[in-house]
Amino acid sequence: MTTATLLHERGATSNLDLAATMAEIGHRARAAAALLGLASAEAKVAALRDAARAVRAQASEILAANASDLEEAESEGLSPALRDRLALDPKRLEAIAAGLEAIADLPDPVGRVLASWTRPNGLSIERVAVPLGVIGIIYESRPNVTADAGGLALKSGNAAILRGGSESFHSSLALVAALREGLRSALLPQDAIQLVPTRDRAAVGLMLAMNGVIDIVVPRGGSSLIERVQRESRIPVIAHLEGLCHTYVDGAADAEKARKIVLNAKMRRVSICGATETLLVDRKVTATILPPILADLRAAGCELRGDPEVLALDSAVRPATEQDWRTEYLDAILAVRVVDGIGEAIAHIERFGSHHTDAIVTEDQAAADRFLREVDSAIVLVNASTQFADGAEFGMGAEIGISTQRLPPRGPVGAAELTTYKYLVRGTGQVRP
Amino acid sequence: MTTATLLHERGATSNLDLAATMAEIGHRARAAAALLGLASAEAKVAALRDAARAVRAQASEILAANASDLEEAESEGLSPALRDRLALDPKRLEAIAAGLEAIADLPDPVGRVLASWTRPNGLSIERVAVPLGVIGIIYESRPNVTADAGGLALKSGNAAILRGGSESFHSSLALVAALREGLRSALLPQDAIQLVPTRDRAAVGLMLAMNGVIDIVVPRGGSSLIERVQRESRIPVIAHLEGLCHTYVDGAADAEKARKIVLNAKMRRVSICGATETLLVDRKVTATILPPILADLRAAGCELRGDPEVLALDSAVRPATEQDWRTEYLDAILAVRVVDGIGEAIAHIERFGSHHTDAIVTEDQAAADRFLREVDSAIVLVNASTQFADGAEFGMGAEIGISTQRLPPRGPVGAAELTTYKYLVRGTGQVRP
Repeated sequence: MTTATLLHERGATSNLDLAATMAEIGHRARAAAALLGLASAEAKVAALRDAARAVRAQASEILAANASDLEEAESEGLSPALRDRLALDPKRLEAIAAGLEAIADLPDPVGRVLASWTRPNGLSIERVAVPLGVIGIIYESRPNVTADAGGLALKSGNAAILRGGSESFHSSLALVAALREGLRSALLPQDAIQLVPTRDRAAVGLMLAMNGVIDIVVPRGGSSLIERVQRESRIPVIAHLEGLCHTYVDGAADAEKARKIVLNAKMRRVSICGATETLLVDRKVTATILPPILADLRAAGCELRGDPEVLALDSAVRPATEQDWRTEYLDAILAVRVVDGIGEAIAHIERFGSHHTDAIVTEDQAAADRFLREVDSAIVLVNASTQFADGAEFGMGAEIGISTQRLPPRGPVGAAELTTYKYLVRGTGQVRP
Repeated sequence: MTTATLLHERGATSNLDLAATMAEIGHRARAAAALLGLASAEAKVAALRDAARAVRAQASEILAANASDLEEAESEGLSPALRDRLALDPKRLEAIAAGLEAIADLPDPVGRVLASWTRPNGLSIERVAVPLGVIGIIYESRPNVTADAGGLALKSGNAAILRGGSESFHSSLALVAALREGLRSALLPQDAIQLVPTRDRAAVGLMLAMNGVIDIVVPRGGSSLIERVQRESRIPVIAHLEGLCHTYVDGAADAEKARKIVLNAKMRRVSICGATETLLVDRKVTATILPPILADLRAAGCELRGDPEVLALDSAVRPATEQDWRTEYLDAILAVRVVDGIGEAIAHIERFGSHHTDAIVTEDQAAADRFLREVDSAIVLVNASTQFADGAEFGMGAEIGISTQRLPPRGPVGAAELTTYKYLVRGTGQVRP
């Protein structure tokens, strides 16, 4: 950070200092947003490329900062899984740098003409994409989020106030220094990317009350974080709630596709929001298609919980309770239910799902069309794994999360989704009658 | 209302009754939304046309209901201006019916393919417009809002829970009966349009807590209503804050265009959100272009408040204080300030404006382009009256308001802006590596 004071950590700051610091950060962010919003596409590309270069050039400083985070994490007894999420190594750092370059290569989302038309009175109207302004991003432990969030905000012409997880504090500081180096070298305002320079949890509460300064808050993390942000925020939120995703194997499914897709949708990575949590199977194919699917899953180490029809088919399956239909396991566990065709599958998804991502496996075009039309989720797939619910897989370069809210942006939030629009109206002296 | 009980009015209900009624309304709205969201464009057009027919056929009932509202309004001492906003007559009623037909004639906003692309792995991705779900609309006295809001919600496939102003309670009930008749005759669910059947103000608080039932809240009314809704709502809001609109007369303005535009922008209707509240004039043209503008305004009955330079030019102008730059008069009053060119004009707008609608009058293309680019408002105009800030004038048929928030929808909110989107992904067995 150039001038903002690096405050004492873990609550050692006075509330007064913290409030003043946050106000100063907000003030700088607004000034930076006004400049960055008007920056050329070329300048933003240069900043992102220079930031990637800085990540590589400052690798030893970033890894040293990460080592100090990891040391603290170990002394505080963080689980090995959490420590793994936190850890950087040269390979992960190179992925971060390459990610910034991938964002640089995206089309510039600002200034796109989203629609244009001319009125009978001769007024020409254009709807043009513009940045949102100042985005507050509140996230948990993974340091790569610092680079993704900062990079996407930069690409979309927004200033970012980043509040990272306290476990990754030093890593995030070091990464933000590299991002700011990219801004500086492209002659863009460094304060377009700022990290809240304290681990004091009160900073989050202050951020959520900065309406008029922060335009949008994006929480990225577990459900308790999201719920706190939704409850406390005076600022509009782009929220990513849970991913209780379903795969439905239709009566007209291709057996081999179903087998491959279900295994991937559940087990490729069990901890991501696009992982399938409930498998629905049409009664017509329980005897034929389901058994090899269950065998594959079991062989891959997946615990199975089923309804009575599934238990009757496979006695090693544990009984599912209604709570299982409502659970986002994020683990190697799958709930399995037999349904009476596509109508019951859609009804189950509507009742228990989280409107995140749901898939059908079928060779029946009419069933596919009905599923696409009637399932009211951000992402609906036919004959593909729910694990494709991801901004990079959608071709957005990176994502800041998957929005499960109804108002746009919905689904993967990349750089283009961090813009809004304004109307440009050109006349020749028109007045309203 | 078909089965919902018409509750006692003005707080005579018990909280328990009211909570049960609101829960029942919410339950019906969700069921209706699920059906209406899948309704064909033709069925929605038929419902809107039949609703227009029903408004005409039930004119005498609607006017009688309005007469009883007006009677109460008079006995409660409402101002003549407010009573005029409330009053219906055959001409206004015909405009309401014609408005429903204009909404019917709009292109169907649901199912539009907003974007589509294919990934290298063969996945085809479409972003398709879908309804928001259940919209809660909270508005004040004008009964025509009941028809506009209900009609736009219907067109966009959303169920609407309408909470009208208590002064227009009987008028709204009668209008909603006609809208529901249209739904019924088109075989669509009547509960897609419901009016909260009580004037008890506690109903608003209950609506704002119906997260999970109501998807979006749209307040339409004065700033105290909007602020209450933003403060209390647990549900995302499409907010319409004040319209502190500017017209800037540039040094390169055409004198005649400037004269015509400023007079219209201020005086055509002073009470609408797109009315200009502050006139900024480039110092280069204060001696030439400004005097006839001020004369026109004064002749039209406009009070003028100016900075010292304006006072020096025209001693009949009253001095403006800083508060004038911050005031949405909604009245025949205009604040006038001399600025040192376009840069100072933009800085004034950024500092004091409400990011609603701002206009420049200029013949200089570079100045026009700069103003369009740098003024960060929902609507930015060149050489046209700010009073064009209106959904109908934009060609949207009607509007439910002008959103001044940053996230979409921003600007006029018509039927298309009451949709969100989902992603349809079609594969052939793809799994994620």
